[in-house]
Amino acid sequence: MPEAPLDWAVVMAGGIGSRFWPASRRARPKQLLPLAGERSLLRSTVERIRELVPPERTLVVTSAALAEATRAELPELPPANVLAEPLGRNTAPCVGWAAAHVRRSDASARIMVLPADHHIGDEAAYREVLRRGLGACEGGALVTVGIEPTRPETGYGYIETGEAEAEGVHAVRRFVEKPNRRRAEQFLAAGGFLWNSGMFFFRADAILAAIEAHLPGLATGLAAFDEAAARGQESAAVEGGYADLPNVSLDHGIMEKAQDVRVVPGSFGWSDLGSWTTAWELADKDAEGNASASDALFVDAHGNYASAPAGKLVALVGVEGLVIVDTPDALLVVPRERAQEVKAVVSALAAQDDPRR
Amino acid sequence: MPEAPLDWAVVMAGGIGSRFWPASRRARPKQLLPLAGERSLLRSTVERIRELVPPERTLVVTSAALAEATRAELPELPPANVLAEPLGRNTAPCVGWAAAHVRRSDASARIMVLPADHHIGDEAAYREVLRRGLGACEGGALVTVGIEPTRPETGYGYIETGEAEAEGVHAVRRFVEKPNRRRAEQFLAAGGFLWNSGMFFFRADAILAAIEAHLPGLATGLAAFDEAAARGQESAAVEGGYADLPNVSLDHGIMEKAQDVRVVPGSFGWSDLGSWTTAWELADKDAEGNASASDALFVDAHGNYASAPAGKLVALVGVEGLVIVDTPDALLVVPRERAQEVKAVVSALAAQDDPRR
Repeated sequence: MPEAPLDWAVVMAGGIGSRFWPASRRARPKQLLPLAGERSLLRSTVERIRELVPPERTLVVTSAALAEATRAELPELPPANVLAEPLGRNTAPCVGWAAAHVRRSDASARIMVLPADHHIGDEAAYREVLRRGLGACEGGALVTVGIEPTRPETGYGYIETGEAEAEGVHAVRRFVEKPNRRRAEQFLAAGGFLWNSGMFFFRADAILAAIEAHLPGLATGLAAFDEAAARGQESAAVEGGYADLPNVSLDHGIMEKAQDVRVVPGSFGWSDLGSWTTAWELADKDAEGNASASDALFVDAHGNYASAPAGKLVALVGVEGLVIVDTPDALLVVPRERAQEVKAVVSALAAQDDPRR
Repeated sequence: MPEAPLDWAVVMAGGIGSRFWPASRRARPKQLLPLAGERSLLRSTVERIRELVPPERTLVVTSAALAEATRAELPELPPANVLAEPLGRNTAPCVGWAAAHVRRSDASARIMVLPADHHIGDEAAYREVLRRGLGACEGGALVTVGIEPTRPETGYGYIETGEAEAEGVHAVRRFVEKPNRRRAEQFLAAGGFLWNSGMFFFRADAILAAIEAHLPGLATGLAAFDEAAARGQESAAVEGGYADLPNVSLDHGIMEKAQDVRVVPGSFGWSDLGSWTTAWELADKDAEGNASASDALFVDAHGNYASAPAGKLVALVGVEGLVIVDTPDALLVVPRERAQEVKAVVSALAAQDDPRR
């Protein structure tokens, strides 16, 4: 891989992850938690790409509120590599700003954009897909990764593949919004539909050209940041100008409109870790289907997920399919299949300005 | 009530209450917990009889392990009024030893014997029954209180009433062991069957005479304690001799055998607080049937009981009929109707010598 030294990674780590309350909090969101292993999801993301991209060329975009915690979690990164958004404006400004950073070093550098809060089961297969994605964007294409679906999932967008452009690289026929159950089943039966993973590959100049073409307001804002950066005043420009950037996703704002868009199909034990339900699915379980991230005692209990601080005993008697997450100041009990609804708790706490949110 | 100054109370407070784990522990059993209100069950017991019997004539019998905590909970009692059993020998030795104490002051004093861990809903009605019980034992009878049943309960023994001896005082036809469901329903339909409450009234000399007649081994042991007490050495005698006392209940050992046994029917919102299920039944509940002894947030949750330390939030989403009891080092989740099974947790912890039992 002679071109490897020029590649960059952009890790999107601005999520608030309220679906993992009470483990996740405003000041300690999902990506900073060890939800599937011993290391935080963010650290896992950075470490598993290290053989492709070193820390010096890994940028992490997060919120200003989380910048300090993010730098502390990744001390091997130069502090300036953690870009702090004054407020969230969805993924197009996030990726655009990071690409502008990369362009200042090397306009033709290839960039891989990765969410900070996903789980990867097969890291070798994953890196193989990353290498393929980098190769596919070499000539200026915008490339995404599509996950081979294993169930009729209604929680993800889909990508319909077009004809093969190279080995393991397809044209994109179209992006499809989250389907209903019936359509999701049709997609699975038909084949040729992949889950939209939120991972991207492109050259810095290619994505910035696409932004200029399809999101001129964003291009103008990024040009102002570049200009301020040349004067050593980028922070002030970002602080003052970020709110004016268009609030739009990279998918909607660019990928669905651009011409040369490709998809690399992948199958590497991917999970977006969307809720406690997923945490249970990924966890080691006993013969009764119980998973515990702590000291637990199960008496005629089945299919439960229990997490509590070290030294604390969780005793479950005669209960089934529950998620129980205990922290020093808040405890959640919810059926596994309703774990998404924890967002209602966080909303209720926010409405009362409760600090435990 | 001219005779009131001579009355004594004996509060039986030796229970271990493992059914209230994790709130109850070896060192902090049920009677020391505020399970139905702000005060501990033990303190409530002593305070609600204060207008009948002052602290100086209230004896509390507990285990040696709990003597210090019991004295701390009831600082208004003379420390010597807390009698510490070196080991539990059921209720006959407990009551006999306390009666021997009373006899040293006044052989003809009337004694009311009360469990420390019951809940009383209507305290005025309760005290009326206590006054009636004291009156009924005046002439030497052994008197018990029978609760008017409100459901076909299979968890209690029953007392079948005989003819009326005075207003609100009946002869006892027989004591009945815990019935099966069918018999309990027959009792309820037939009338004349009362729940055996474990409360008793008798003169000190009367119960000690009955012990001499029906449990001579206990009488011999108590005589040895009296003799040692006269020499100021009762503690050593109890320490050395308690294990030799017969391990039998007052019901089986005395009440079922004695001649002049009476029962005072009562109806005063009585509950033996047998499990977390009962705690939920007695607690104030919201419109959805949820009760919480702490800061709680219920989202589409019904009929739950939640208890946690101060400052901790319990969030229940989409769950029904659960008991959730959180403490700093242990958390219990169990369906309300299976709350009795928490004993299995305590047994498992004891088998592993886990200090959290």
